[in-house]
Amino acid sequence: MKLRNLVSKRYKETPADCVIASQALMMRGGYIKPVGNGIYTLFPITKRITAKIEKIIREEMNRIDGQELLFPVAMPASIWRESGRYDSIGSELLRFTDRSGADMVLGMTHEEASVHFVRDVADSYTQYPFMIYQIQTKFRDEPRCRGGLIRVREFTMKDAYSFHTSQEDLERYYKICYDAYNRIFFRAGVGDVVAVASDSGMMGGKVSHEYMLLTPVGEDTIVLCHDCDYRANMEAAPCIVHGEPGEMADLQKVETPNIKTIDDLCAFLKIKPEQTCKAVVYQENLTDKYVVAFLRGDLDINETKLRNYLKAEIHPAEITLESGLTPGFIGPKGLPEGVRVVYDASLKGINAVATGANETDMHYTGFNIPREMGEVEYVDVAKAYDGGICPVCGKKSIYTSRGIEVGNIFQLGTKYTESMGLTYVDQDGSLKHPIMGCYGIGVGRLAASVCEAHRDDYGPVWPISITPWHVHLCSLRADNEEVAAVSQRIYDELTARGVEVIWDDRSVSAGVMFSDADLFGVPVRVVVSPKGLKNGTIEISARDKSMQEKKPVAEAVDFVYDYVVSELAKLECRL
Amino acid sequence: MKLRNLVSKRYKETPADCVIASQALMMRGGYIKPVGNGIYTLFPITKRITAKIEKIIREEMNRIDGQELLFPVAMPASIWRESGRYDSIGSELLRFTDRSGADMVLGMTHEEASVHFVRDVADSYTQYPFMIYQIQTKFRDEPRCRGGLIRVREFTMKDAYSFHTSQEDLERYYKICYDAYNRIFFRAGVGDVVAVASDSGMMGGKVSHEYMLLTPVGEDTIVLCHDCDYRANMEAAPCIVHGEPGEMADLQKVETPNIKTIDDLCAFLKIKPEQTCKAVVYQENLTDKYVVAFLRGDLDINETKLRNYLKAEIHPAEITLESGLTPGFIGPKGLPEGVRVVYDASLKGINAVATGANETDMHYTGFNIPREMGEVEYVDVAKAYDGGICPVCGKKSIYTSRGIEVGNIFQLGTKYTESMGLTYVDQDGSLKHPIMGCYGIGVGRLAASVCEAHRDDYGPVWPISITPWHVHLCSLRADNEEVAAVSQRIYDELTARGVEVIWDDRSVSAGVMFSDADLFGVPVRVVVSPKGLKNGTIEISARDKSMQEKKPVAEAVDFVYDYVVSELAKLECRL
Repeated sequence: MKLRNLVSKRYKETPADCVIASQALMMRGGYIKPVGNGIYTLFPITKRITAKIEKIIREEMNRIDGQELLFPVAMPASIWRESGRYDSIGSELLRFTDRSGADMVLGMTHEEASVHFVRDVADSYTQYPFMIYQIQTKFRDEPRCRGGLIRVREFTMKDAYSFHTSQEDLERYYKICYDAYNRIFFRAGVGDVVAVASDSGMMGGKVSHEYMLLTPVGEDTIVLCHDCDYRANMEAAPCIVHGEPGEMADLQKVETPNIKTIDDLCAFLKIKPEQTCKAVVYQENLTDKYVVAFLRGDLDINETKLRNYLKAEIHPAEITLESGLTPGFIGPKGLPEGVRVVYDASLKGINAVATGANETDMHYTGFNIPREMGEVEYVDVAKAYDGGICPVCGKKSIYTSRGIEVGNIFQLGTKYTESMGLTYVDQDGSLKHPIMGCYGIGVGRLAASVCEAHRDDYGPVWPISITPWHVHLCSLRADNEEVAAVSQRIYDELTARGVEVIWDDRSVSAGVMFSDADLFGVPVRVVVSPKGLKNGTIEISARDKSMQEKKPVAEAVDFVYDYVVSELAKLECRL
Repeated sequence: MKLRNLVSKRYKETPADCVIASQALMMRGGYIKPVGNGIYTLFPITKRITAKIEKIIREEMNRIDGQELLFPVAMPASIWRESGRYDSIGSELLRFTDRSGADMVLGMTHEEASVHFVRDVADSYTQYPFMIYQIQTKFRDEPRCRGGLIRVREFTMKDAYSFHTSQEDLERYYKICYDAYNRIFFRAGVGDVVAVASDSGMMGGKVSHEYMLLTPVGEDTIVLCHDCDYRANMEAAPCIVHGEPGEMADLQKVETPNIKTIDDLCAFLKIKPEQTCKAVVYQENLTDKYVVAFLRGDLDINETKLRNYLKAEIHPAEITLESGLTPGFIGPKGLPEGVRVVYDASLKGINAVATGANETDMHYTGFNIPREMGEVEYVDVAKAYDGGICPVCGKKSIYTSRGIEVGNIFQLGTKYTESMGLTYVDQDGSLKHPIMGCYGIGVGRLAASVCEAHRDDYGPVWPISITPWHVHLCSLRADNEEVAAVSQRIYDELTARGVEVIWDDRSVSAGVMFSDADLFGVPVRVVVSPKGLKNGTIEISARDKSMQEKKPVAEAVDFVYDYVVSELAKLECRL
């Protein structure tokens, strides 16, 4: 189509609230328009991109025997009550009442809907396994929207649910889905997306992976190993420490006036942070009960692992006078009654640490946990750290990186089928609960992530598989008869052969035309100009600068067509 | 795919609450599963149908230069306040608050979103005209859901919005869209859908059409003419009466003990209903003020026309003692003060009518409205009736029919662009409001309507353009080696040529297989059986019984392929 007819707009200035580069480019290029907090209208140019992403996803889901269906966005609260999530999920689950006063929710995910659907439909073992999926609008009432389409409240998601009669079969299919996801990201042009082991969070289940686009602007921290393939989300990564047990020493209570931080304590006592035991204090959400986690002074707490261990939601503590806690001087010995204590595994085997004495301006030195406290349980609740030990290969090769989560897969088990009473009759006549997996990809977030991964200072560089058009045809001086005629022919011939062309024949300067083309990010640019035609040539170049050619007019269409087809083939896509 | 692997279920019994045949078949065939009141999950078989409907709609919208985009489902109330509809629409607009307490709505239509989007994007006359559309989930909190997907609360809708710089241009494009809609319905297999003039209702604007599938189970009443092309929704149809002026007579007050209905009055006075003036009483919603509409005794009130004339929402009156009204005996003369009176055009020119005297058990005869009441305004607020006068050809040829509305188109004018402050700079430098049109089609309702129009007692008869599969392959006795081998070859060859095949190779009786196939409604059935193979033939038949052939095994694939292609071509569709 002609660019002049496209409903579009480009802006010179970056809106002030843009925090990442892809967001800035997608705002400047007229890809997205905010309607409310974390709610966007997608321009036609963006819908062309997301439609191609959805097509790739559909092809790969169908290839692994997925069956597309459609669940509702608005659901009665009753099915969310059955699973227990109506009460267990916080205010990111949007609840409302309809005109009759009935409680409803907006779907942020569809485990409940899928189990509701399968109930009464697949009641014999002969009907298993199967996978159903949808591509549908979701709403998640995020407190912190961010980065354009990266973190929004309303989004389009592909969510898939598989049902199995054995854990082995789930694992077999999980692996198939794992590979399908790799194919999807490869075909969408971000083959460098990596799968990392993840925490299952509110979804339940045990084994799960997130697909991460590694980028400094990502919201997640990924733990990786230099020496092997180990990769995990920080939330789920074990922390394996290496350290010295140190010498045994006598317990001494020392005055430490106004020494409240590990750094101050180390300077004061002339010791290393590894020789201290620090305290981090939380409160359980429901009871306000205090939880004190102790860990080696050089490490940080991993709240997700702590939460999973406690099996309770927690928040950083507000320490009152009545609590009996002495901030800055908290240690294992002499804590008030009723405080729940957790010892991190990093403290195990250390012979002597410095730690708080639960009195103002007082610390212990020579503190030996088993000697002073008796045998205690050590739990892994610390964050993995650069230079830490890899849980797979055992080398001190851990490093961290940032990533955007573009997809996830979960082995859910029977959490939903049990709570919602979904059963089938097994071969031996007994009633059983199917075992579930679930598999999500956010379409808009993937588009934004691709933009984040493929861009330069002037605009996105769309992979040819998801580009809004294949070819950006620029007619410099379209008022020139020959330019107009040649451009029209190129446009007609490419279009007839299935190549998607956006044609700019506006009477604007070459500068405006090219900077607009940069913001469109179309992979192939074809420039027809009076100067080129004088030499009988057309300029053809790649948006990513990997190709630049001057071709005789008669050869241009064939060249462009072949180039587009072969570039598409590299990403296993076709015209 | 194999039917045994399809997530599906069929039922022998029709659920008790099914009110129309297509709903019963779609429930029995496992097309839809209710999740809540007016909220459904669509089975994979249905998603295949709606995806094809959406593809046809996209092709036709793109053909008339529509540009697909995506608006949000959940929107801030602010843009609905700008248009005034946040307050003017009743509880079918679902309102809720988000976690921050902000007022939000679920989109039941997207005029506000489209104007919000175009604002700042199309600010010069050079960018007009254009049409944008989306295919997206809508929510309308219907008080009365009905008929499966016919009337639901959540549904997928194609909604399009066009923007123009002149009324002439809107009218030009409106005609183009009118034709595109006819093509869509034709290609979806319901070419007998008719466009009727409609009331614009809450959408605003003046000219509008509804596309109606004429069927006795429809919720709308359509007014048509036997002698010309005139068609209108009852809500919008003018009522042109023909009647006798009758003789002048003296006004007399007569005792009519307990005579409260027109029928009783006619019997008592030995006159015809055309010689009476009846009263219908409403109250305005906001003020509870009484409205009395008078019309000729043989006619019925058209509440939509009355509402439009009053420019107020009304409800049937609750007549209290304090009102001063005398139910059964209400007439124009002697009404309490403060009552708003409307005279229907049917009363104009009648010399004498019988009507209430506003006293218990008393009527007037010989009542001449201008003589007793002075000159009054007559307004058309009566329902058109069988045998009435056609407003186009003038003949007494009006008749009525029932219909399901499957689409609508509106000339909106500047209602939204003015209220929401959308302007563009015109050629002369002045600021102007674009003129809008809007165009909707409910995807699920269209699927259900096609089912209602094309079915027999045993199941739907899907048009080949939107059928879930083209061919239903039945292998009778798939345990027979030759049956299995021939079936596999037919399946493979058809699939390789792009024909969609659902293959039933279950070990069930022919009866079960065929009754399931009837519920699937796939247009072409291919039966491979030991008996047929003994004679070297395959049975091929059409679901609608228009074709039944026995073909030699070697010719079967070609025959089926050619048949499918030619049937698709009739509906302007391709493999």
